[in-house]
Amino acid sequence: MNLDDDLEDAARAGSSQPVHPGLRRARAWLSRAVEPGVVDFWRFVDRHGPVDAARLIRSGAAPPRILRLVGARAQRDETLADLRRAERCDARLLVPEDDEWPAFPLHALTVATAEEPDDPKQQSERTLAPVPPLALWVRGPGRLDVLADRSVAIVGSRASTAYGEHVAGELGFRLAERGWTVVSGGAYGIDAAAHRGALAADGPTVAVLACGVDRPYPAGNGALLHRIAEGGLVVSEWPPGAAPHQHRFLVRNRLIAGLTRGTVVVEAAARSGATATANRARKLGKQVMAVPGPVTSAMSVGCHELLRGTDEKSGAHLVTSAAHVLEVVGRLGDDLADTLERPSNPRDGLSDVAIRVLDACPVRLGVGPERLATVAGCEVLDVLKVLPALELAELVQWTGEGWRLAPPPKGAGRG
Amino acid sequence: MNLDDDLEDAARAGSSQPVHPGLRRARAWLSRAVEPGVVDFWRFVDRHGPVDAARLIRSGAAPPRILRLVGARAQRDETLADLRRAERCDARLLVPEDDEWPAFPLHALTVATAEEPDDPKQQSERTLAPVPPLALWVRGPGRLDVLADRSVAIVGSRASTAYGEHVAGELGFRLAERGWTVVSGGAYGIDAAAHRGALAADGPTVAVLACGVDRPYPAGNGALLHRIAEGGLVVSEWPPGAAPHQHRFLVRNRLIAGLTRGTVVVEAAARSGATATANRARKLGKQVMAVPGPVTSAMSVGCHELLRGTDEKSGAHLVTSAAHVLEVVGRLGDDLADTLERPSNPRDGLSDVAIRVLDACPVRLGVGPERLATVAGCEVLDVLKVLPALELAELVQWTGEGWRLAPPPKGAGRG
Repeated sequence: MNLDDDLEDAARAGSSQPVHPGLRRARAWLSRAVEPGVVDFWRFVDRHGPVDAARLIRSGAAPPRILRLVGARAQRDETLADLRRAERCDARLLVPEDDEWPAFPLHALTVATAEEPDDPKQQSERTLAPVPPLALWVRGPGRLDVLADRSVAIVGSRASTAYGEHVAGELGFRLAERGWTVVSGGAYGIDAAAHRGALAADGPTVAVLACGVDRPYPAGNGALLHRIAEGGLVVSEWPPGAAPHQHRFLVRNRLIAGLTRGTVVVEAAARSGATATANRARKLGKQVMAVPGPVTSAMSVGCHELLRGTDEKSGAHLVTSAAHVLEVVGRLGDDLADTLERPSNPRDGLSDVAIRVLDACPVRLGVGPERLATVAGCEVLDVLKVLPALELAELVQWTGEGWRLAPPPKGAGRG
Repeated sequence: MNLDDDLEDAARAGSSQPVHPGLRRARAWLSRAVEPGVVDFWRFVDRHGPVDAARLIRSGAAPPRILRLVGARAQRDETLADLRRAERCDARLLVPEDDEWPAFPLHALTVATAEEPDDPKQQSERTLAPVPPLALWVRGPGRLDVLADRSVAIVGSRASTAYGEHVAGELGFRLAERGWTVVSGGAYGIDAAAHRGALAADGPTVAVLACGVDRPYPAGNGALLHRIAEGGLVVSEWPPGAAPHQHRFLVRNRLIAGLTRGTVVVEAAARSGATATANRARKLGKQVMAVPGPVTSAMSVGCHELLRGTDEKSGAHLVTSAAHVLEVVGRLGDDLADTLERPSNPRDGLSDVAIRVLDACPVRLGVGPERLATVAGCEVLDVLKVLPALELAELVQWTGEGWRLAPPPKGAGRG
């Protein structure tokens, strides 16, 4: 079917469930029209919706700025080939309109993008902008929203030491064993060791790539990526077949930070890619953790740099075990972990922000984090930080539309 | 000469310089009369002065509580033997009345002792009480006040690994190279490596022992202690010949913490002696630092525990080099280190407390830390923390009696 006709159909159908094939095709087309990570382009799609956004560009009616970004690609259409290629490798295109979309963790990117200036010249450059993905190609049997819900990123150097690989593997294993998803980048070194550790515990693990989900890159990890796709998910913003260009790794890194509750840096050289990912995670309100190592090892210098940061804006939690990691992502910056073990009154020990967010939650209809932030009188990022912990404590629940108070446990009044 | 006659003489002489031999003998006697570390006994000596304190006990006129502490030792006198034995090994007895007494660093112990309750039953037990020493036996050519002024304790496990010994040696070497004194306990493992590192840089190093300064304990470190005594100092609260009883190590540890600006733990097992020393240092307002290591090493667990402490009451600075250590003990918790490099206005970047203490310093007559705390409106321990840094920055000076503003540099007005 012709793309434009399909878009027309989708426009008539409006918002429907399941997602209209034309809408999915619109997002497939948009995600190829401009390299991911451009604030202005994402905002344009967000404003008009994917179907109208694609139609406005195809018809030349979009603002000149947007048309310039797309250029000659406006008249091309490779979506059918992309979708067919995805089908051949058992991959599918996940869009924000799908139930499976990891809306909650990725909301941190939306919040951060809202803070970007209006002037395109002053916006973060593409490789560093905290822009949400327009769509995600996913390969594997896992459900991304479920996997991302209790997930931790384990990242680090490709030129890792035996020590770092041992620790990454052990962390991956123990986290998977406790039902947490290990997210990493599928690279050599720490990434591979973390994925392997999770697989060894028969846990699902997610590899977020900077190339098509059907590409065995790096070549030596082909078999590993295949195993990841068998039980977990291989994820990419780029269509099947896309090449792992250098600049795509930086763009990809925000997704690893954005999909997870926190990032653990296992080994990293001074001022390296892994510490950069950690700093991006921090800016998204996610937890940052680092594993110490011998001070004589160049591969631990980056970790020690993170750990030496003394203020909240540069520091990292020192973790030496999966238990330490869960203490951090469980409590999310507050002392909720303790609370979970005290059944008496789950509100005891909640941070001030957590209590305000809890009080802001309605009893019946779910509301979004922005609304909660307004009522609670705090930042949206703070709300996003405490919600998962409140959910773990069974104090709030996600309705599919928003957050509300969880019903009190049977036979017990709410403290 | 008979002890009591000597005391009589000293009482008549009053406070004189140089220190009257009777006063020194009084302190030698008192330091044997009761094991070091008893709050009540120190307070009794502090209240009456050493000469009168000894006379009151000898004559049976001291309060029954004090007489009970001394017991039958009240009528014994081994001071001449102790002093002769000290002379034979080139040691001497240093008393608080000497110029060389490290009054400033040890003042932290006085401050902490002032907070002990009046009721002896509620006071800290002897092995943990922060009591100042009544006198110190020192062996070697060093001047204790000078050596302690810019000093760092390096402590850690006796059952150290090659990694820990390498790091301790390297820290000892680099700190000594920069003119800092390395203080440790003369034990096997980390202690010995730190002392050796300092000696390798021809730097003075101080070993604080839990036995007599003439005892080669532990036996395998006999040669090392001999070398330390040749260029630095071997220090002990116990008279020459005293045995290294188990309980004395805990009492000794407060001195290592008290004499120095900060304590670096290089390797320590979980909840070990070294971490206990670090926690005592913190309670004295001294800086606490820890060196990270492999998370797979049991000998780094204690360090990681210290580093994971998140609040000011349990945390430690992560250090991986002598430069990191100097950043901490130089600035003493504030950002003074930066300031020292900016000649423009030395007040820039001073912490709020440092500025208040500076403003509290008189122009001519020196005053004590308590007075400064009252005028500056802060804790005495805070004053003790910032004074060394202010002195390094040449903003204040020690008159021998107290602290006052340093004269402005020639040809420059005070910013």
